[in-house]
Parts: sequence; C-alpha cells; structure tokens
Amino acid sequence: MSKSDIEIAREASMKPITEIGAKLGIPAEELMQFGPNKAKLSFNYLESLKDKKDGHLILVTAISPTPAGEGKTTTTVGLGDGLNRIGKKAMICLREPSLGPCFGVKGGAAGGGYAQVVPMEDINLHFTGDFHAITSAHNLLSALIDNHIYWGNELGFDERRIAWRRVMDMNDRALRDTVVSLGGVANGFPRQTGFDITVASEVMAIFCLADGLKDLEDRLGRIVVGYTRERKPILARDLQAEGPMTVLLKDALMPNMVQTLENNPAFIHGGPFANIAHGCNTVSATKAALKVADYVVTEAGFGADLGAEKFFDIKCRKAGLAPEAVVIVATVRALKMHGGVAKDQLGDENVDALKKGLANLGRHIRNVGKFGVPAVVAINRFIKDTDAELAAIQEFTKTLGVEAIVCEHWGKGSEGTEALANHVTKLIDGGSAQFRTLYDDETSLFDKINTICREIYGAEEAIADKKVRDQLKQWEEEGYGNLPVCMAKTQYSFSTDPNLRGAPSGHTVPVREVRLSAGAGFIVAICGEIMTMPGLPRKPAANTIRLDDNGLVQGLF
Amino acid sequence: MSKSDIEIAREASMKPITEIGAKLGIPAEELMQFGPNKAKLSFNYLESLKDKKDGHLILVTAISPTPAGEGKTTTTVGLGDGLNRIGKKAMICLREPSLGPCFGVKGGAAGGGYAQVVPMEDINLHFTGDFHAITSAHNLLSALIDNHIYWGNELGFDERRIAWRRVMDMNDRALRDTVVSLGGVANGFPRQTGFDITVASEVMAIFCLADGLKDLEDRLGRIVVGYTRERKPILARDLQAEGPMTVLLKDALMPNMVQTLENNPAFIHGGPFANIAHGCNTVSATKAALKVADYVVTEAGFGADLGAEKFFDIKCRKAGLAPEAVVIVATVRALKMHGGVAKDQLGDENVDALKKGLANLGRHIRNVGKFGVPAVVAINRFIKDTDAELAAIQEFTKTLGVEAIVCEHWGKGSEGTEALANHVTKLIDGGSAQFRTLYDDETSLFDKINTICREIYGAEEAIADKKVRDQLKQWEEEGYGNLPVCMAKTQYSFSTDPNLRGAPSGHTVPVREVRLSAGAGFIVAICGEIMTMPGLPRKPAANTIRLDDNGLVQGLF
Repeated sequence: MSKSDIEIAREASMKPITEIGAKLGIPAEELMQFGPNKAKLSFNYLESLKDKKDGHLILVTAISPTPAGEGKTTTTVGLGDGLNRIGKKAMICLREPSLGPCFGVKGGAAGGGYAQVVPMEDINLHFTGDFHAITSAHNLLSALIDNHIYWGNELGFDERRIAWRRVMDMNDRALRDTVVSLGGVANGFPRQTGFDITVASEVMAIFCLADGLKDLEDRLGRIVVGYTRERKPILARDLQAEGPMTVLLKDALMPNMVQTLENNPAFIHGGPFANIAHGCNTVSATKAALKVADYVVTEAGFGADLGAEKFFDIKCRKAGLAPEAVVIVATVRALKMHGGVAKDQLGDENVDALKKGLANLGRHIRNVGKFGVPAVVAINRFIKDTDAELAAIQEFTKTLGVEAIVCEHWGKGSEGTEALANHVTKLIDGGSAQFRTLYDDETSLFDKINTICREIYGAEEAIADKKVRDQLKQWEEEGYGNLPVCMAKTQYSFSTDPNLRGAPSGHTVPVREVRLSAGAGFIVAICGEIMTMPGLPRKPAANTIRLDDNGLVQGLF
Repeated sequence: MSKSDIEIAREASMKPITEIGAKLGIPAEELMQFGPNKAKLSFNYLESLKDKKDGHLILVTAISPTPAGEGKTTTTVGLGDGLNRIGKKAMICLREPSLGPCFGVKGGAAGGGYAQVVPMEDINLHFTGDFHAITSAHNLLSALIDNHIYWGNELGFDERRIAWRRVMDMNDRALRDTVVSLGGVANGFPRQTGFDITVASEVMAIFCLADGLKDLEDRLGRIVVGYTRERKPILARDLQAEGPMTVLLKDALMPNMVQTLENNPAFIHGGPFANIAHGCNTVSATKAALKVADYVVTEAGFGADLGAEKFFDIKCRKAGLAPEAVVIVATVRALKMHGGVAKDQLGDENVDALKKGLANLGRHIRNVGKFGVPAVVAINRFIKDTDAELAAIQEFTKTLGVEAIVCEHWGKGSEGTEALANHVTKLIDGGSAQFRTLYDDETSLFDKINTICREIYGAEEAIADKKVRDQLKQWEEEGYGNLPVCMAKTQYSFSTDPNLRGAPSGHTVPVREVRLSAGAGFIVAICGEIMTMPGLPRKPAANTIRLDDNGLVQGLF
C-alpha cells in the first residue's frame, strides 16, 4: 500500500528555513523565524530589492472541479520543484488553509504525495498566526461599531443597516444568525447580526490585495460598515478603525516562507474565499516571490472560469502583475465525470466519455486565451489512467494549439514534472504573452458581469431584477463604478446549476444579489446560495483528532 | 521630562533570544524562535532536566490595589534583574497581557521605567499566539456542543443548562448576552448564551495549571459543558473534544522566553483572570524556570488576599510548588490612600494618613505568614515620597518582624533592587520557609470558603443562601469536594465593599453564586459583580493607535 500524505510529509528531511532562504540570497536576519521551518520575510529586505527586475509569473488553474479531484495545489508544488530540478531559481505561492474546516471533514494538507509543502501540520493549524490576526482586526472593527452606537451614535448608524458582521475561524453554524446586545442597558442596543468564517472576511480579501502596509491601511479605512437612515455610507475610517486594524496586521502581512518536500522555497500567505472573494494568495507574497525568484508558480481557487478570471481581472489588474504562462490542470478521471461517468465507474477506461468531457477543458483553454497568456495543460496522472485516455486528451488540446503534458509529481516528485517545467519555460522564453484583462475599468458594472457571463461562462446573458440593477447604478454614482466584479457562482459548472458538467452554453446567469467590498476593491455578484459559515458534519474529524504518545497529531489528515 | 515606558523600551539593546537562553545553558535548537527576540522552550529540553534540582521560588505580591498604583510587575522585573546583578542565576515568570483591553484604555506594557520586559509591543499584541490558540480551543468545544445537539443530541443536553459559552479576546459588550442559532432549521436550535473575554475562559485556567500535555488533555476532558434534564453533568470528553483541543494548544503550552531591559531571561506565559480564576502565569513556565534558573521570581494577580492566597492554595497545592520567600509590594502613595487620602492629594507628605493605611499592609504581612513563607516588603519608591514616610513604613514592618526595603528599580533598574535581592537571598538561605496551604483538601467546600474569609479577609464569616450551600453539597457528593476554592471578590478591599480601604474587620462575606471549574480543578465562589466581558470606553485607545511613518506602533502605550 502506498504511503499517506502525512506519512510522506513526516519522512521529509526539512532544512532550516534560513538555508532555504539562502538559496534565494536572502540573509538569515531578514527572515523572522517561527521555529526552525517557518519564517516571515521582512519588508525591509523587500524594500531593498525594489529596483530589481521581476521574475516570470505562472498561474496554475484547472478544469471545473468534480468530486474526482484535480490536484491543482499538488501540480503547483510539482511544477515549482520541476523548475528547480531543471536549474531554474523558482518558487511557489500558495494560499493558507483555514483552521475551522480541519475539524469538520478530514483534510487539510498542502499538496499531496511527493508534491507537498511542509511542515504540513503547522501549516494546517495556527501556522504563523495570520488568520488569527485577521480575525482580531475584523472583530475589533465590529466592537468599535457597537461601541460607537452605545456611546451616542454620533455618526448616525441605522442599526438595521449595519453591513459588518463578526468572524471566527471555526465551522460553527450556531453563529450564522444571532442577536447581540441582549441583557439590558449596559450591553447596548439589541440587533440581529451573525458571524462568518474568517476566510470570508473582507479583511481577508483586503489583506490579500494590499500592496504594503500603507495600502492596507487605506483599504481598511474604505470598508463600508453601515449606512445612516439617509442611506449615506459610513466607513471604517469614520470610526478611526483602520489604524489599530493595521497594527494588528502589521506582522501578518509579511509573507510566510516554508519549503517543499524537495527543499525548494514556497510562500504560503493569505487565503480568501474563492466565491465572495478572489481566492488567491496575497499580493505581498506574489510580489515578494517575483523579486527573490526568477520563476514564480501560483494558483487560483476553483476552476479557471472563477479562479483564473478573478486572478486576472482582480488581482493582476489591481497589483499590476503580468502573468506569462498558464497551466490548466486536468485529470482523466475528472474529464470522464464531465463526460457523464459516475464516480464509482471512474476506474474503467472510457475514451468516449472522456472525449465528451473534453468540452470542459476546451472551454477553459479558449477562456485563458482571451487574457492573452499562453497555456499548457498538465494531466495529473492517476494509476488507472490508460494510454488511450491520455492520448485522447493530447490529441484534443493540439487542435486548440496547446500541449497537454502527462505529469507524475504525485508519485515521483519533480521527476514527474520535468517535461512540464521545460515546456513552461519554453512558453515564457517565446515571449508570446500579451496579458490583458477581460474588460476595462470604465465598463459599467452590469456590463462587466455580462461580459464575464458571456465570454467565460458561455452564457446567453446575465439577468438581474431592478433592485440589483439600481444598486449597481447607485454605486456607480457613488464612485465605485470603476471597480472590477467578483463573481460568486458554483464552481462545479459554467452555469449556475452545479449538476451541469461539461460545457453548457446559452444559459442565463441570474444575479440574485450584489455586495460592495469597497476596501478590497470589488463588487460581488452573487449567483446562487453562498454559505459564509460552514457547519460541522455528524461525525466531525475533531472526534478522532488527538496527540499520540509521541506528541504527533493523529486524525487531522 | 522623564522618558515614557515605550521610549525606554525602544531604546533597549535586546540580545538575540538564543543568547539569553545560552546564559541559562539552553542550546539554541531547544528554543522555538518567534523572530529574533521571542522563543518557546521545547518540552524535550525540559524533559532532559527532569532529575535536576529545582531552584528557589519567590512570589511577588502586593497590598490591596488602589488607583495610586503599586508596581507589582515592575518590582518582579526589578527583583529578577537585581538577583542577576548580585551574581545569581535568576529569571522571572509573568503573565501574558490580554489583547482586547489594549484597545480600550491606553495601557498594556510589561513592567515600567527601567524595569520592563521586551519586546514590549509584541508582548502586548499577538505575542506567540497563545491566547489565539486558547480562543480556538474554547470555541471548538462550543461548536462541538451545538453541533452535537443539531445532529440528534444523543447525550441528552438540556439546552437551558449548557454551561459553556464562547470567547473572544476583545472588549465587546455586545457579545455578553446573545441568542444563537436563529435563521431556521439549518442553523440549529435557538438558545440564549454569550461570550466572555478569552482570559476568563476555563481553558485559560486549565492551560495555566496543566503540568504537561497529558495533564492538559485530562483536564480539558473533565470540563463540565452542560447538564441533562436529570441534572447529570456532561463532560467535554463525552464529546471527544479534549483531543483536538489539546492539538490546538500543543505549541502554546511551551513557555515563552523573552528578556528584561537588562538582558536577563523572563518567561511570559498564560494570563487567567484573577477573580473567577487564579491569576498566575502557567505551571509550565514556573516549573521550567525552576529547572533552568536558581532563583525564580513570579507574581500573582491583585493584592495578597486574592493573588497570593490563590497562588498558594490553588497553584502551589496542585503543582507541588514550595515558595521560599514572598515580596509584598507597597507604595507610600497607595498606603496613604488606604489611610484616607484622596488621589489628588497624594503628592503631599502625610505621615499620619500613611500610618493609618499601614493596617492594610500589616494584614497582608500576617496573612502571608499563615502560609509559612518568610516575607519582605518592597517599597516601590516614587519621587515625592519623603524620608519620614519611608521611615514610618520601615518602623511599622519591624514590629511584625519583617524588613521593608526601599526600591528604585523604576528609575535605576537593578541598581535600585540590589538591597532587596540581597535580603531575599538571605531569607532563602535562612531556610525558614515551611510552606503550607491554608486548608486541607478534605475540608468541606463551605468551610474552605469560611476559612479564607476569616483567616485572610478578617471577616466574621461567609454567608450563603440554601441554594448555594445545596450546590456545594451536591458537588461534594459528585466527588468535587476535594477541590480548592477560588474566591471572586473585589480586589480593592478585604471586604466585599471596594470603598472600604485599610483593613476592615468583622464583616460578612456573602457568597452569591458558586461555579464549578472541574477542568481547572477549583470551585469559584462569587462574592460580588464579576464582569467577564469588558466593554470599550467612550473614547477607546483604538482611536489613536496606528503605525507611524517608521512602522512603529503609536498610541498603544
């Protein structure tokens, strides 16, 4: 039987993080260590590199996810190791996992097999405390709002229109919908509100898009926390909240360095929701990586329709990044699911179903092309994949001018991604990238939504009732019209029906609700049920998590 | 004008924490670093010292606090530095400050003047994340309770008798009293509950009393989280919660090492409430310090009636510690307040009032004697103290067989505590300590309360209605009768009236309510209003906290 991820991770021979940093020329004193294997990279050091030329940015994205699994993070890690293997100075940038969900469904992990980031347990538990800092900053703002109202409400909050909840990094359904300030005069004015999980906080989205501490503070100040009875927005800066929030986040904003199983450098930093937010690691980490490495491999949440689109249209637009290559991860199994095969039949060869499912991959390839960045498909190989199935993918992608390269990093580490790494560098050396966003800042908000629905989802159009359209108009009048749009839609389909696999076309995309994330700098368009506070299952993973007699964590993975 | 604490702290020339550890013979690899100036000491290293003889334990406590300030922490730091100055291998153990209150009233800090612990800002902000880990562990248990009920309530929780709230490290009065699980079937069963500040969590008390990870897990499992309709207690271990809670706390339980301004070692670890809990730093830190140093100076919360009593009767009893000397901190100013002087008149010499106030000091000196530990009074000198006032204190304490030594550590650092350090070592070398607790485990719970009220508070008796007495009887029947008692009473007076300064006698102490902290291992006797979730003031310190242009924190101190 093959080893589990955690067994492989525990057998890793980690090097001191200062040694990993040294590979990139980073002096030990510029790494703020958290134990021997984790460190934050100082802003001072990054400041000293500000005139250095940036490295090349590579995005790893994927086909629409299915229960079969694609292995996007694993491929990101594998490609980073592969680039190092072929002699490139490369590093990867990943998102930090959220703590709460680890106690729900057994999971966690950062990559898998021989393409993992370590120390795995630390990364999945408190890590360097970033999410705790974000939780504190968010909840300080919440406390300041209720405190302001308690002491006289000088700003004139309409208590029915407070737009800021509280957060906790825990799966706790009981907190979704609450009443606070009960118990009499000393406890304030009772009102209905609730908690989201920390990764759904706008502070998380801001943290991930902020370019330095000053920008972080400015963005925090711009958060709309509520409205007056006259519907005038009240901002976090009206409460002087952005100062102490920035103080709480000042260390957290430094990117966290760890290593892969092959002792190559990795930043793991920030982890916003991929539906109501943009689902990418921090701009801090990506920019830092581009200064210290020649090739930077990063990933975006969900499939390319959501993750890559937001990476390009939100993160790259705002941070001035220009990716030069895109890797689209696919698996034979997932493509067969897109072709209609049930989960328990994925072990059988089925080239016909696979060919049908390739429509999903094809759509994503065409979509990525619209952003002007050359692509390659990484086939994350599973043991039962047949040669005929692999060949069918490769033949198909050739018709779109794109190579599909079989990768075996899960079982072999960087040896399994050497071909992919070589191809990616070839794409970059070719200099063919002409990165562009999908729409201009000046396009109206609803047209932005419509453009994404048509160009990326293959939809006929986006639809929205008058209330939604009026809201968008109002924001345009208030000066928010130049913001990009963050789509909150099911990740399982190009449509809003999660059961519609493959590449559905001609559907309509109903926009149920829109939200303003003025600090993060985007408008959220909600096209479906969005759960911002998960619950625990009947038998939570917590039931079996414990320390064994050697002090090792059991049951987390 | 003299320098502020923060100015002095910023001018400190900190040494790398590995260098501080090396002074105690600790190898660098046994220190899990958090940046260059903070580290956690590994359990492995402590395990290797388990047969080493313990050092000498010294408690710093104080007269009943007044708005004039006493300087207990400052004196703890000063004495630690003083002992090092006279050539002793000494270290100090302090509590970690809570984050939430820093945004309320300007404050924070760890010590003051030239007797401080650094890095001050880190210590007052997230430090090494211990409190965040405690918050997570506490709230995981909360989520598991509601989740258990949601999925069928197999254990039979009476939803009206859930004894476990949630916590947050924030001053947020709106969370004191809440209703959760609103919003329909998917969110559970609505019920009334609330949040306490993290330092008031029983997990914090457990964390501070746990002797190693196994004991921590056992204690967490013993927490009573609620009752069935038949009033049968339901424990955390019935929810299998102790395993994942311990996993969340495993790193946090390692003591945090920092340094004083004079580069002497300090542990800062754990910070439980001093009313509903015992108000001392962790047993982990104290025991670790006793292994690595020859003299360990620690402090307890509030005045000696509460802090020292709990230190002796709860912490020392449970952890098997035997303190050898007690330092009682007093100031001329505070003694004058105890003698009836108003706060704005404290600058004037007033020997008569001071003599009247000495009754408070006298009671504390006698009390400490009841625990069999020799004492010394440290007079924390302020600039306006007159020779006549200082002499009056010294004459008075001599009548009780105790020296009172004038200390000037605030202005002079260790030079100002050399005499105190010499005297403390003389007390210890004298070998006169015969530490004993105030009452036996076998004494009934109400008699324990009564003993404390009579012997320590000078009261006539404790009184309680039938409900309280019945509750204590029931706990005795359930096997909790051997637990010590944790008094929750105003710290400002020996009585339950905070305005009764000096040394009131013959009063009664009404016990309003009793609570079981089965995991921490004590019964809480509540004798007054206890606030477990503070609020923010009209003009919170948060309003002025921000990073300046050099990235330094402004407004926190």
